[in-house]
Amino acid sequence: MVELRTAKGTKDYSPLEQKVLNDLITKITDIFKIHGAVNIDTPTFELRDLLLNRYGEESKLIFNLEDQGGDICSLRYDLTVSFSRYLAMNKIQKIKRYQLGKVFRRDNPSFAKGRLREFIQCDFDIAGTYLPMVSDAETLCILQECLKEMNLGTFKIKFNHRCILNAIISSAGVPSSQFNSVCSSLDKLDKFSFDFIKEELKSKGLNEKQIDFLHRYVLLKGKEELVDKLCLTEIYKNEEGKKGLDDLKLLFKYLNNFGIKDCFEFDLSLARGLDYYTGIIFEAVFDKFKEIGSVAGGGRYDNLVNTILSENSSVNVPCIGFSFGITRILPILLKINQSKNISELKVYVGSSGSLLLEERMSVLKVLWDNKITSETFYTKRFNFNSALEYVQKNEIPFLMVLGENEIKNNQYKLLYGSKKEDKFIGNLEEVVKFIKEN
Amino acid sequence: MVELRTAKGTKDYSPLEQKVLNDLITKITDIFKIHGAVNIDTPTFELRDLLLNRYGEESKLIFNLEDQGGDICSLRYDLTVSFSRYLAMNKIQKIKRYQLGKVFRRDNPSFAKGRLREFIQCDFDIAGTYLPMVSDAETLCILQECLKEMNLGTFKIKFNHRCILNAIISSAGVPSSQFNSVCSSLDKLDKFSFDFIKEELKSKGLNEKQIDFLHRYVLLKGKEELVDKLCLTEIYKNEEGKKGLDDLKLLFKYLNNFGIKDCFEFDLSLARGLDYYTGIIFEAVFDKFKEIGSVAGGGRYDNLVNTILSENSSVNVPCIGFSFGITRILPILLKINQSKNISELKVYVGSSGSLLLEERMSVLKVLWDNKITSETFYTKRFNFNSALEYVQKNEIPFLMVLGENEIKNNQYKLLYGSKKEDKFIGNLEEVVKFIKEN
Repeated sequence: MVELRTAKGTKDYSPLEQKVLNDLITKITDIFKIHGAVNIDTPTFELRDLLLNRYGEESKLIFNLEDQGGDICSLRYDLTVSFSRYLAMNKIQKIKRYQLGKVFRRDNPSFAKGRLREFIQCDFDIAGTYLPMVSDAETLCILQECLKEMNLGTFKIKFNHRCILNAIISSAGVPSSQFNSVCSSLDKLDKFSFDFIKEELKSKGLNEKQIDFLHRYVLLKGKEELVDKLCLTEIYKNEEGKKGLDDLKLLFKYLNNFGIKDCFEFDLSLARGLDYYTGIIFEAVFDKFKEIGSVAGGGRYDNLVNTILSENSSVNVPCIGFSFGITRILPILLKINQSKNISELKVYVGSSGSLLLEERMSVLKVLWDNKITSETFYTKRFNFNSALEYVQKNEIPFLMVLGENEIKNNQYKLLYGSKKEDKFIGNLEEVVKFIKEN
Repeated sequence: MVELRTAKGTKDYSPLEQKVLNDLITKITDIFKIHGAVNIDTPTFELRDLLLNRYGEESKLIFNLEDQGGDICSLRYDLTVSFSRYLAMNKIQKIKRYQLGKVFRRDNPSFAKGRLREFIQCDFDIAGTYLPMVSDAETLCILQECLKEMNLGTFKIKFNHRCILNAIISSAGVPSSQFNSVCSSLDKLDKFSFDFIKEELKSKGLNEKQIDFLHRYVLLKGKEELVDKLCLTEIYKNEEGKKGLDDLKLLFKYLNNFGIKDCFEFDLSLARGLDYYTGIIFEAVFDKFKEIGSVAGGGRYDNLVNTILSENSSVNVPCIGFSFGITRILPILLKINQSKNISELKVYVGSSGSLLLEERMSVLKVLWDNKITSETFYTKRFNFNSALEYVQKNEIPFLMVLGENEIKNNQYKLLYGSKKEDKFIGNLEEVVKFIKEN
C-alpha cells in the first residue's frame, strides 16, 4: 500500500493557499512589468557541473538526480545561477528580466519558519553596464513598490555595501582570505549580540584589537549622515571603502529622486551569506512580522556571468537583483485572507420544483459565454433551501432560481446571496446585464 | 570549464516564448475560473512508490532522484497521479480544480515535435459523483471554450468510450487480458493504416476472424446517428457496450444543450494509451495544425483515487479531466506572434541636450506610480535620434523627451513612436492622463 504523504520538506498547496499565492505573484509581477521587465524561464534541473562551487558550504544541500545514463544533473538551488548561465549561453549583455520558479534545497525543513525543501522564488534582475548606481536605485525602487503593494504595513529595506564591509575588515588588519568567514559571522548580528559574535570571531583567530575595531563600525545604522560620517574616517581612505561610500552617496541621491528614501536604512551589520556579491546588498523586513525574518533579499553580483563564461573571458555582464521568498510570506497572508468564496463564484444556478437539468445547463452556458463565474450542482437532491444556504455560507453574490413558469415566460429570478429578500427579475439578457453591472 | 548548455531534452524559454506561453495560460485558466474551478499545487517530486505501476510500459521513463538519505523520490510524470494522491490524502470527494506545472519524462526528445523531457501540463479535472455524463459534458464544454479562445481556426474534439472499445474487443472474442494491448495497437490508427495494425494484431495472437470483426467497427466515425446505429448491433447487447452507448446518447444531448455539438466527433479508433481510463476518452486537434497531433487529451478515470487509497477502501471518487499540452502548442503560437514590444512598453523617456538623469528618474517614478509601463536607458550616449529610432523599431507607442526648458516650464513633450510628427504637450499631470487614455 502506498504511503499517503508528500516527500519530506514538500507540501501541497490548497485552493485557498494557491489563491493567496497567485494574487501575490500577480501583484509583484505586475510591478516588474510596469518597469519594462520581460519574463524568462529555465529548466528545473541543470548540468551538475554548473551548480558546483557556487554556494560555498551550502553545496551539500543540492538535490541530485539519479544517474540513469546520459547527463549528470541536479535540481536548481536558486534562479540566479541559471539566469547567469542563460546570459552567458545567449551572449546577452543587457536585460531586465523576472523569473518565477521552484527551487530545491535539502535543508532541515521547518514549515513554521517557512523553510521548505521545495519553495517558490520570484526573482527580478537587471543585467548590463549603466551609469553608476542607477540600476541599483531602480531595483530598490521596485522592491519598495512590491512591498508597498502587499499592504502588510510599514517595512524597512536595510542595505550595506560589500566594498565597505571589506574595507572595515581590511582596516581592522584581518587578511583578505578571511573576509567571507568574518562576513558570515557578522551576518548573525540580527539574531545574536555582539558579545556572542565576539567569541566566534576569537575562535576564527581574530585578536582583541581587531574585534574592537570591527565593533566600532558594524553596529552603526543610519541614513545619509552616516555615509558622510564614514567619509571622515579611515574607511574612506581605503580604496574599496571609498568606492562603496561614493556608491551609497549616489544611491541616496537617486532614492531621493524617486521620493522613497524613508523606508531605507544603511546598516553596517548586514553581510548576507552568498559569496558572489560585489556591491550593495540588501534585505527587506516588515515591521509587524519581524519573526519571519527577511521576505526579500539581493544585491549586486558583477562577476558571476563572467565566472561561468570562464575566467579569461573578456565579456563582462554586471548584474543586480533580488529574490522574493514567496512561500515564506504565505503564512502571514493566510492569516489575513480567509476568503470563503475561493473560486470567486458570482452566480449559483439552482432550480425550484423539478430538476430542470438541461435548462440549467443552457442558462449556465449563456453565463459562461458572458464571462460570468457560475456553477450548478449536477445532483438530484439540491433543493431551493439548500441552494440558498450554500450561497450564503460561501458568500456567493447571486442565486438564480429556475422554475418551469420562469422558463416558459422568459422571466428569470435573481436573488442576492446574502439578503434573500432582494430580487431582480427579467429576461435572460437583462439578468446577464444586471449581474455584469453589480 | 562549465559546458554552456541545458540538460538533454530541456530548454530555456526566451522573453517572447514566455510572453506567448503566459498569454495562453491566462486564456485557458480564465476559462477554468469562469466555471468555478479552484487551483491547487503539488510538489515537483513524489515518493517513488506512488508513481510505480501507474504508467504501464512508460514507467521506465520516470526520472529518479538520487538516494541522498531519507525519502526515495522521483520527479512527477504527470499531474493526474499527484492530484489523485491529493484527493485521497485530504479525503476530498468533490472538487473542480485546475493545476499548472512541469512534468518530466526521460523520453527521446524532439524539439520539432514538441516532445521534451521537461514540459508544462495544464490540467483541468472534476472529481465527484454527479448525475450521469453531466460533468463529462461540462469538461468537454470547457475544452471547447479553451480551443475557441485560442483563435487558431477550426478544431475537432474526437471522443470514444472505453466501455464501447471493451465491448467491441470482447465481442470479437478477444480475452479481457488482452484489452489494453489491443487498445494500444488501435491507438496507432491515426498514424498508420489498418493493414499495418493488422500485422501487429496478428503478432499479438489475434486470428483473421477477430481482426475482421474489429475492422468492421474501429474505423467508424460519426455523430449521434452512429450511436443510434451501434445500438442496433451486437455491441449494444454487451453489458459494457450498452453502458457506453447510453452514456454517449446522454452526452450528445448535453452537448446540444450547450450548443457546441458541431466540433465533436465520435471516433471508434480513438483508444489512448493510459490504462486508468474507465469511461469517455477524448483528444483535440486543430484542423490547420494536424502535424503536431493532439493539443489536449483526457478522459474519465473512476478508479485511480480508489487504487491509491488501497483496493479495499469503500471511498469512491470518480474523476474526469484533461491535460493541455501547453509546450506543444508553443511553436504554432510563435509563428503567429512575433511581437517586437515584448515587454509591452508604453513610454520611453529620453532627454534632449543634456543628460537630465535625475529628472528622467523623477518623471519615470510618476509614470510607474500611475501603472504606465515605461523605461529609460541609464547610459550617457542615448541621444534624441537614437531614442526615436528605438521606439519606432520596437513599436513603443510613446516617446517622452525631456529638455531643460520643458522641465522649467512644466511643459512635457510626448511624441508618438510610429509617427514622429504627432505630438502632445502638457504638464506632467496632463501627459499622464493623455497616455492613460490612448
